[in-house]
Amino acid sequence: MSVENIKIGMLGLGTVGRGVYRIITGNGENIKRKIGAGLEIKKILVRDLNRDRGVELDQQLLTGEINDIMEDPEIKIVIEVMGGIEPTLDFVQQALQNGKSVVTANKDMIAVYGKQLFELAEANRADLLFEASVAGGIPIIRPLKQCLAANRINQVIGIINGTTNYMLTKMTKEGSDFAEVLREAQDKGYAEANPASDIEGYDAARKLAILASIAFNSRVVLDDVYTEGITKITATDISYAGELNYTVKLLGIAKETEEGVEVRVHPTLIPVDHPLAAVNDVFNAIFVSGDAVGDTMFYGRGAGELPTASAVVSDAMDAARDLLRNVPGIISCTCYDEKPVKDMGLVESRYYIRIQVSDKPGVLASIAYAFSDKEVSLATVLQKQTDAVTAEIVLVTHKVREKNMQEALEIIKHLSSVKAISNVIRVEGD
Amino acid sequence: MSVENIKIGMLGLGTVGRGVYRIITGNGENIKRKIGAGLEIKKILVRDLNRDRGVELDQQLLTGEINDIMEDPEIKIVIEVMGGIEPTLDFVQQALQNGKSVVTANKDMIAVYGKQLFELAEANRADLLFEASVAGGIPIIRPLKQCLAANRINQVIGIINGTTNYMLTKMTKEGSDFAEVLREAQDKGYAEANPASDIEGYDAARKLAILASIAFNSRVVLDDVYTEGITKITATDISYAGELNYTVKLLGIAKETEEGVEVRVHPTLIPVDHPLAAVNDVFNAIFVSGDAVGDTMFYGRGAGELPTASAVVSDAMDAARDLLRNVPGIISCTCYDEKPVKDMGLVESRYYIRIQVSDKPGVLASIAYAFSDKEVSLATVLQKQTDAVTAEIVLVTHKVREKNMQEALEIIKHLSSVKAISNVIRVEGD
Repeated sequence: MSVENIKIGMLGLGTVGRGVYRIITGNGENIKRKIGAGLEIKKILVRDLNRDRGVELDQQLLTGEINDIMEDPEIKIVIEVMGGIEPTLDFVQQALQNGKSVVTANKDMIAVYGKQLFELAEANRADLLFEASVAGGIPIIRPLKQCLAANRINQVIGIINGTTNYMLTKMTKEGSDFAEVLREAQDKGYAEANPASDIEGYDAARKLAILASIAFNSRVVLDDVYTEGITKITATDISYAGELNYTVKLLGIAKETEEGVEVRVHPTLIPVDHPLAAVNDVFNAIFVSGDAVGDTMFYGRGAGELPTASAVVSDAMDAARDLLRNVPGIISCTCYDEKPVKDMGLVESRYYIRIQVSDKPGVLASIAYAFSDKEVSLATVLQKQTDAVTAEIVLVTHKVREKNMQEALEIIKHLSSVKAISNVIRVEGD
Repeated sequence: MSVENIKIGMLGLGTVGRGVYRIITGNGENIKRKIGAGLEIKKILVRDLNRDRGVELDQQLLTGEINDIMEDPEIKIVIEVMGGIEPTLDFVQQALQNGKSVVTANKDMIAVYGKQLFELAEANRADLLFEASVAGGIPIIRPLKQCLAANRINQVIGIINGTTNYMLTKMTKEGSDFAEVLREAQDKGYAEANPASDIEGYDAARKLAILASIAFNSRVVLDDVYTEGITKITATDISYAGELNYTVKLLGIAKETEEGVEVRVHPTLIPVDHPLAAVNDVFNAIFVSGDAVGDTMFYGRGAGELPTASAVVSDAMDAARDLLRNVPGIISCTCYDEKPVKDMGLVESRYYIRIQVSDKPGVLASIAYAFSDKEVSLATVLQKQTDAVTAEIVLVTHKVREKNMQEALEIIKHLSSVKAISNVIRVEGD
């Protein structure tokens, strides 16, 4: 063990923590040659000292006592992979206060408490790195902060939840229903027993808040993000979408507009020839448009032991490099602006709408009239007989404000010939 | 003009130079807020002081005298966008010797003289940044050096020449012939009057040498790269490829194997559902596989005024940040290893082969025998009548060494029933 090793304290040893341990020990020689010093895990905080960790390690590394890490001046970097807010936030704050650099994979924490943490990091001249918090191993935080820094970013559109992308891909390829695919995803371990965070869009919303903050240099928090999940997506909608040359994805969409920053997560129809349309299964991708670079996309695995650990360890290598040169915090918080978050009612989008109606004359006219009255203009109309007395109408609109759309839908819902508005899905990327 | 401005000397004011000037002046306020100091172009070296540059600028900025930049101690960063080797290499060496950080878009120079230049940069504690030299605005150099640093990279496969990708896309979508598409690309300004560098694969080979050096931490130079262009690709091959569920792309392929580093540029069949298959027109993409992160891909515009300038200015911002913290050269050359370059004869690949034969009994048997004699095993065989006396045989092989394939082809070429081997194209990505 060389004297130049940089000592690390780890909080947590779950899936990602195990991956971090494996990479740091298994790839140690290369890491050392790349940064000029070795990385050494000195202590790992765990709740249960005796649990089998699925990885061979020196039991002496484990501790149940947070102060073994916080009060050890030799430990320069804290890797936080325990997740959650309580007591994680306290631990991370304490580490920064003690001048330790922090690497975290914790989107829940960064999406809500980012501002406080960055201020603390800056005040204590410490690195706070969080590449792993968004889209697992895909490099996106540093590319936005550095490689694309010369740009004004106009929009970030991402498939940033692997579970729902797996489910939608299955539904698209096999025509299967939501409930069936969810069960399958749970069996495979892609979806949790309580899948709400994924299927209701909250996980994607956290990541989108982080991405938007960096892309637009203005703090966006979880509460700012309009969020809709995929639970109402049916095989029928996916089939119609295909007929219209679209595919259905759960997208996180962030745009900078004159009326403020737009941040929303919802199922979306995108054209089949859009680069995001080809991103299938558990893969993630983030599509970024800048005023100079144009359209770019970053693709890869958004979760999993080793992909996420890849980002964590790469961040730790950067933190170590900064420590060796005595410049921790060289790139800190980039939210130097305070841009308003745009009201959802003002957001402009195209819409796909599926409506059940009585199959009699004048129905389409009354629906079309309600739309035009609210300045909603129609681009495509499909009408199909479903049984002797019911027809299904599928519409795609031109761009219109959310507020107008909701008002039009409110009127249409109450038309006597309308039996049900089966679905309303936004359309993006034309 | 604030005292904290970082002064820049620019070499060249062509297409990319104009883009750099536009971004630095047009986006100056944001750049300043991101790095804590403004970027200021103090001098620009041009050959002709009176030429119209297509951009409004103070004529006082222009100079025909290189020493106005090299000997100005106020100039801390040199942006090289004049291209070529002579006299560029001298200028860049001089800048580094004078302790100036250098940002360059010059793949020709880096792919051949990288080693000398990095040594010079290190000796003089200067940054030498070259993100723009590969794939224009797409972040790939820094992601490989930093974001994926924890990985052992196994392979890098890229569509890294926009001109040929545009041409192949056209040929695929419209069934048009090579010559016709080349004329069209020249008319549109996508291909140069002398298109050899693009269509013969040399441009891609330079970029691949740079990518492989970084990915495998071992210097690879242009001469190491086996290079084949797209001139022999016909509409017929593309059509057969489609029938077999492949698409044809000019790929740069770099792999680390036990027998050394494999680096090759050639037209390639890849499966239509491979992420690279959907990369069309002038877009570029680099597919990177690491032991921890798995498969990732970086997509965007590989050339053009503003996309390339996006990478140049972002690099200049990093150089400025390093200067402000007094750590230029914090990430320098990462070629700490010396791995052998694998002999092309040892490379393993699958192959697509199209052969014209006399349409009589026993022909296929004699061909199949020649292949099996050289241990080439066949995966797919298509045979089609082309006229009364000729048939066309299309074969796809399993993986086999290049050497065996060439030996088998040598025998087949001389079989009495074989009229011509029309094409041999490697297959990748299954």
